[in-house]
Amino acid sequence: MNNLQSLLQNKINQKTKPLGALGRLEELAIQIGSLQQTLSPQLRRPTLLLFAADHGLANEGVSAYPQAVTAQMVLNFVRGGAASTVFARRLGFTVDVIDAGVAHDFDESLPITHAKIAHGTQSGLHSNAMTGIQLDTALAIGALRVQAAAVAGANVIALGEMGIGNTASASLLMASLCGLPVDDCVGRGTGLDDERLAHKRSVLARVFAARGGTSDVMNAMQRFGGFEIAAMTGAMIEANRLNVLVLVDGFIAGAAALAALRIDPAALRACVFAHQSAEHAHQMMLRQLNVKPLLDLGMRLGEGTGALLAYPLVQAAVDMLNEMASFDEAGVSKA
Amino acid sequence: MNNLQSLLQNKINQKTKPLGALGRLEELAIQIGSLQQTLSPQLRRPTLLLFAADHGLANEGVSAYPQAVTAQMVLNFVRGGAASTVFARRLGFTVDVIDAGVAHDFDESLPITHAKIAHGTQSGLHSNAMTGIQLDTALAIGALRVQAAAVAGANVIALGEMGIGNTASASLLMASLCGLPVDDCVGRGTGLDDERLAHKRSVLARVFAARGGTSDVMNAMQRFGGFEIAAMTGAMIEANRLNVLVLVDGFIAGAAALAALRIDPAALRACVFAHQSAEHAHQMMLRQLNVKPLLDLGMRLGEGTGALLAYPLVQAAVDMLNEMASFDEAGVSKA
Repeated sequence: MNNLQSLLQNKINQKTKPLGALGRLEELAIQIGSLQQTLSPQLRRPTLLLFAADHGLANEGVSAYPQAVTAQMVLNFVRGGAASTVFARRLGFTVDVIDAGVAHDFDESLPITHAKIAHGTQSGLHSNAMTGIQLDTALAIGALRVQAAAVAGANVIALGEMGIGNTASASLLMASLCGLPVDDCVGRGTGLDDERLAHKRSVLARVFAARGGTSDVMNAMQRFGGFEIAAMTGAMIEANRLNVLVLVDGFIAGAAALAALRIDPAALRACVFAHQSAEHAHQMMLRQLNVKPLLDLGMRLGEGTGALLAYPLVQAAVDMLNEMASFDEAGVSKA
Repeated sequence: MNNLQSLLQNKINQKTKPLGALGRLEELAIQIGSLQQTLSPQLRRPTLLLFAADHGLANEGVSAYPQAVTAQMVLNFVRGGAASTVFARRLGFTVDVIDAGVAHDFDESLPITHAKIAHGTQSGLHSNAMTGIQLDTALAIGALRVQAAAVAGANVIALGEMGIGNTASASLLMASLCGLPVDDCVGRGTGLDDERLAHKRSVLARVFAARGGTSDVMNAMQRFGGFEIAAMTGAMIEANRLNVLVLVDGFIAGAAALAALRIDPAALRACVFAHQSAEHAHQMMLRQLNVKPLLDLGMRLGEGTGALLAYPLVQAAVDMLNEMASFDEAGVSKA
């Protein structure tokens, strides 16, 4: 523990409760206080960055849903009818929906951030999913949206994504970066049955054989995509630089975190891992990241839903630091 | 599944998300809709019932804290400086602090519910912790506070407790009702070191030997207490009768639930088990209750803190039912 962490721990230990009795909330409070360099952190203008992009792999039958659903869900986000936007509204989040590469031309008047890199990535079967320039752009889009949120007053963001086929990209990235067999990294995504899961496995094996695994993060992201994953990676790295707290969602966001960690070993300092997904390989991914998420609710929806649901716990940790009375203040006897 | 549950499941399956992708939130939505007998449940005037009472056992050195802390914490609740009152304020809960038997005479003007049964229970070493009349009164106090909350408009309550020494009572109740060895039911409570834990074990063994274990719930509660535990038992039974949703906290509230289940096998229909406590025997208690709580955050504070922190998940489940768009409404393609 450094000096500020010791001071935060000491402040927590003076609160009217048994030592350590708030468990993970106490760890959260120390993380957030350290990030904000204060004993009295504040959460301001919580913002959901919701990155949408399409995947060439979606046309290879790796998802239970057609590619068109990505664009349809962007419209659902705008109208507030999707799970993440329902939760965001309740929890007071500003929502920034970013088209980072959806295979659909949205009306320019739509209240989204228009940052389309291309109409989806390549499948990876015949060429890399994206070019080096496209990867740099995707990383920059993520960083820029964090900067925009910070300028608007946010010091806490949740990261979410929408992209039919993106569990496939996340699985390939995980296998590549962690040196794991592709099969160990594949799951049912939006809910494939056994037959379609077998098909997904065979497609991903072909992509991995065609492109080859690599532990080099920039090469791995170019080979396997996707735009929204790279954007989240860029967002995490920038959030760490700006001391903005990041709520990390499930499997896809976890793949972005794996990449962020390879680009900048300090990138996860600002991250709170929000929930464990029901997606098969997420547990192993979390072990690779060496983190234990706050929630485990059997969810596998993406869109930042898990990240948002962890926000009240973060808020409780901050409230504990700022609003709970000390033993002295309350006149309560100590152990 | 009965017909209403099927209709609820069907409504959830139409929402713009993969089938089952909201995991435990979907189960919660079905439970709440069933309880309220509607496809569009509402949460109204969430209320924390915070029962405080003292334990004769506290004077036998079973807690890290002196008995005076119970009364001191009641004052801390009233001033809003305790963890549970901080969380309740943030989450919009009305707080009802009930003196069910604190060993201190509070000023009558204090904004608490004055329902003192006695100045604490007996220790159980020389006589039962409470008389039959006292037990009936404690059960009734719990039921009456649920009725009062419901009359004021609440249809969801969180149950919390404060009582130095009450993990000891809860352990004895658990051992008695479940036919388990007392040692398996004992934990560190507010944070005993090894030496004091050994002392707590020996005291509880003496009480258990003196009173004897029994699976008869009314006898077990008289023998081992406590007032606040019995009040929570009465509250759960009444909440079930009134279709009021109950958020159940950790180890002490769990002991109350064990008792409620023995009095009325349907008593837990309205209960949502909120969190798994770090208290040693809680995991086994949850297996006895055959429930899996929503949160596991290493907390062991009581006061309803865990129950409160689960409320945003309950709210999210209800919002999902009421506010998420269906595939048809949103024009999103199905799988």
